[in-house]
Amino acid sequence: MQDNEMRHLWQVADEMADAARAAILPFFRGAALGTENKEAGGFDPVTLADRAAEQAMRDVLARRRPEDGILGEEFGHSAGSSGLTWVLDPIDGTRGFISGTPTWGVLIALSDADGPILGMIDQPYIGERFRGGGGVARMDGPQGARDLATRRIDQLSDALLFTTFPEVGTPDERAAFDRVAAEVKLTRYGMDCYAYALLAAGQVDLVIEAGLNAYDIQAPIAVIEAAGGKVTDWQGRPVHNGGQVLAAGSAALHAAAMARLSQA
Amino acid sequence: MQDNEMRHLWQVADEMADAARAAILPFFRGAALGTENKEAGGFDPVTLADRAAEQAMRDVLARRRPEDGILGEEFGHSAGSSGLTWVLDPIDGTRGFISGTPTWGVLIALSDADGPILGMIDQPYIGERFRGGGGVARMDGPQGARDLATRRIDQLSDALLFTTFPEVGTPDERAAFDRVAAEVKLTRYGMDCYAYALLAAGQVDLVIEAGLNAYDIQAPIAVIEAAGGKVTDWQGRPVHNGGQVLAAGSAALHAAAMARLSQA
Repeated sequence: MQDNEMRHLWQVADEMADAARAAILPFFRGAALGTENKEAGGFDPVTLADRAAEQAMRDVLARRRPEDGILGEEFGHSAGSSGLTWVLDPIDGTRGFISGTPTWGVLIALSDADGPILGMIDQPYIGERFRGGGGVARMDGPQGARDLATRRIDQLSDALLFTTFPEVGTPDERAAFDRVAAEVKLTRYGMDCYAYALLAAGQVDLVIEAGLNAYDIQAPIAVIEAAGGKVTDWQGRPVHNGGQVLAAGSAALHAAAMARLSQA
Repeated sequence: MQDNEMRHLWQVADEMADAARAAILPFFRGAALGTENKEAGGFDPVTLADRAAEQAMRDVLARRRPEDGILGEEFGHSAGSSGLTWVLDPIDGTRGFISGTPTWGVLIALSDADGPILGMIDQPYIGERFRGGGGVARMDGPQGARDLATRRIDQLSDALLFTTFPEVGTPDERAAFDRVAAEVKLTRYGMDCYAYALLAAGQVDLVIEAGLNAYDIQAPIAVIEAAGGKVTDWQGRPVHNGGQVLAAGSAALHAAAMARLSQA
């Protein structure tokens, strides 16, 4: 893809993320403070915010990229003619959202037949945006802009591991996860998609999850790979269609974690 | 305490929190991105930040409140003559800090013989400050200022529960925690002191922890009680000297959780 085409796509993605921010923030932490509008009309705030944000992003695409397909968590799949599909999760981490933790995010990816070519993880409340793909690996946040680069450590014993476990996963998946957790330096829980952003930023080294959908993982794949990391399923296969996810800051650490996950 | 005296104390606390922010932020997420200064001189970034922030707060007190005592996590206790003691944890949540998650905080409390009379939980990266005590229950953040008020629900089945578990606690403590977790609507992990701020803001309903020190809990006690919540140990006793902590948004929910924690 040519540079000017890539710049155009990033402009569209930024416009979508800005629209999602504006749609979501009035709902974040709003319902519990003073007014009791939760479930007014049959919807809770996170459902209202989710739908409003996906619609806002679809409105940008209808104007700027009507030829592209869309796969969204809320409104499903619509085919396009360009061979490109925008993959959208308006609020990844709804349990974090309803708890008030700034660990949820807006996930935007653009994919061709082989997987994501660009991805964005946006945290509206903090005001952080993580971008990867097409030669870009960069974040903006309260401390300004900086390049994204994963930390390249080789040993599990040096690694910081994040996951949404113990909250999701089958018992077998939990046992596999625990084999990795037993060897790492530190395990932390409950960060939702923010964990992938921290991996791309070189703050943590491994994220292991299960039961993900395509729209949960395509944006993280693009951001992490642009920053130098590796993301596959637990058998080392492409994972852009979802499933069990292993994301690592380096190929060596990825291999070490995968060996523990696949033990009988 | 008179209103003008209370205003003065809040000004001092804000000045301390501002000084701590300035001391800490250069270390947050700095070491892993590009430069390899970790453990230079035998200290890691979080230790350097911890000490710099506590020293910066002590410098403010030496100038503004030399008559007060100080109990700090890094530099210990120094007696005063006023009957008041500032209780300081420059970085509560060091594991969150080293992972890059904005869940750590600066904790500042001012106590008399009976416990904290004001408290502050500050999250420098997000730019959020939660204050409680002396008639104040208020937060500032990226969305502006708003009053703090806990959510007053009565039933465990409606409650959102936060903790640092499964990372800390003895097996017996974990079993007691699990009895509560089994009955709540949602349990989330890994939020460090930020969980107490979310309780005061009416976003979550219960925080249960064990093994805390006085400097970990005095600021949360002041903020949560000012917002209408209740904080004790697992037997309902004052907990400002540390130990097992049960914090709840309402007295009824506090009683329901304590009944489960104390089952044999």
